[in-house]
Amino acid sequence: MTEHLPALVTLLTILLMFGTAFAVGLARGRYGIQAPATSGHPAFERAFRVQMNTLEATLLFLPTLWLAAHYGFAFWAGIAGLVWIAARTWYALAYLREAARRGGGFALGMVAWMATLLMALAGLGRAMLAG
Amino acid sequence: MTEHLPALVTLLTILLMFGTAFAVGLARGRYGIQAPATSGHPAFERAFRVQMNTLEATLLFLPTLWLAAHYGFAFWAGIAGLVWIAARTWYALAYLREAARRGGGFALGMVAWMATLLMALAGLGRAMLAG
Amino acid sequence: MTEHLPALVTLLTILLMFGTAFAVGLARGRYGIQAPATSGHPAFERAFRVQMNTLEATLLFLPTLWLAAHYGFAFWAGIAGLVWIAARTWYALAYLREAARRGGGFALGMVAWMATLLMALAGLGRAMLAG
Repeated sequence: MTEHLPALVTLLTILLMFGTAFAVGLARGRYGIQAPATSGHPAFERAFRVQMNTLEATLLFLPTLWLAAHYGFAFWAGIAGLVWIAARTWYALAYLREAARRGGGFALGMVAWMATLLMALAGLGRAMLAG
Repeated sequence: MTEHLPALVTLLTILLMFGTAFAVGLARGRYGIQAPATSGHPAFERAFRVQMNTLEATLLFLPTLWLAAHYGFAFWAGIAGLVWIAARTWYALAYLREAARRGGGFALGMVAWMATLLMALAGLGRAMLAG
Repeated sequence: MTEHLPALVTLLTILLMFGTAFAVGLARGRYGIQAPATSGHPAFERAFRVQMNTLEATLLFLPTLWLAAHYGFAFWAGIAGLVWIAARTWYALAYLREAARRGGGFALGMVAWMATLLMALAGLGRAMLAG
C-alpha cells in the first residue's frame, strides 16, 4: 500500500492539472477569448495563470516526490503529497474567484513541497554518504 | 522490446517538444519578435501557443504513460503513446497553419491520453487492492 | 556514488527552477506587477521569460537524463547534467540582466542536453537491438 502512495498522488496531480486546463477551456468559451490569445478578460487571465502556476508547481513537486519515495520516504512523501494536492486544489479554486485569495493555498502547498524536498535531500545525502 | 516501448515514446515526445520550441525560434526570426516579447504577429503567437500547449499536454501524458507501463500495461500504453505522438504532431502542424484546424489532432491526442490514464488507474487500483 | 549522480542533478534542477520562480516573485514586488498580469516592465518580463524557458528546458532535460541513466550512462549523463546546470544558471543570471546576453548559456545548455539525448538514443537503440 505504502509503495503505491506516490503513484496515487501522481495520478491526483495529473487530474488537478487536467482540471485547471479544463477551466481555461471553459473560460475561453464563456468570455469569448479566441485561441491563440491568452488575455482579454480578468477571469480568463486568472484561469490561465492558475493553469500555468499549477504546471510550474507540479514540475517542482513530482521529481522531489519521487526522489523522496525512492530514497526511503515513500510513506511520508506520499502524506506530504496528499497535503500538497489539497493545498493546490484550494489555491486553484480560490484564485479562480479572486487573485488576492490565492495566498493560503499557495503557502500550504509550498510547505508540503518543501517537506518532500527535505526528504529527498536527506535520503540522497544518506545514500551518497553510504557510498 | 515491449519494455522499451515507453522509453521510445518518451524520446519521441522530447523530439516533438524540441520541434515546437524550434518553430518558435524560427517564428521569432521571421517576424522580428525580440525576446522577451511573446506577441506581435498572429503566426508567432500560434507557434508560441503550440509550444506551450504541447508542453502542457506532455506534462499530463508522460506521468500517466509511465504509471501505466509500471503497473502492467507497458505494451498497450506504448501503443497509445504512439497514437498520442501522431495526434500531437498533427495538432502542431495544423495549428501552426491556422488556429481553427487544431481540433482533430487535439481530440485524438486526448483520447490516446485518456487510454493511458485508464490503464494507470486500472493498474494502480489492482495493485492497491492486492495489497 | 555514480548511480546517485542523476538524482543529485535532478535536485539541483529543481532548485534552479525554484530560483527562477523566486526571481519572478521578487520582480512582481519590485515593479508592482499585480497577478495575474505577466507584463508591464521589461525587467519583470525578462524574469518571467527566464522562468518559462527554464521550465521548457527542464522538460526536455529531465526525461533524457533519466533515460540515458537507465540505459547505461548514469555517470556520463550525470556529468553532462552538471554542465547543463551550470549553463542554465549562467543563462538565467545573464538574461535577467539583459536579453541579448542569454546566448552563451543557452548554447552550452543545448550542447549538454544533446549529449544526454545522444546517450539516451544510443542506450535505447542498443537495448532494443539486443531484444
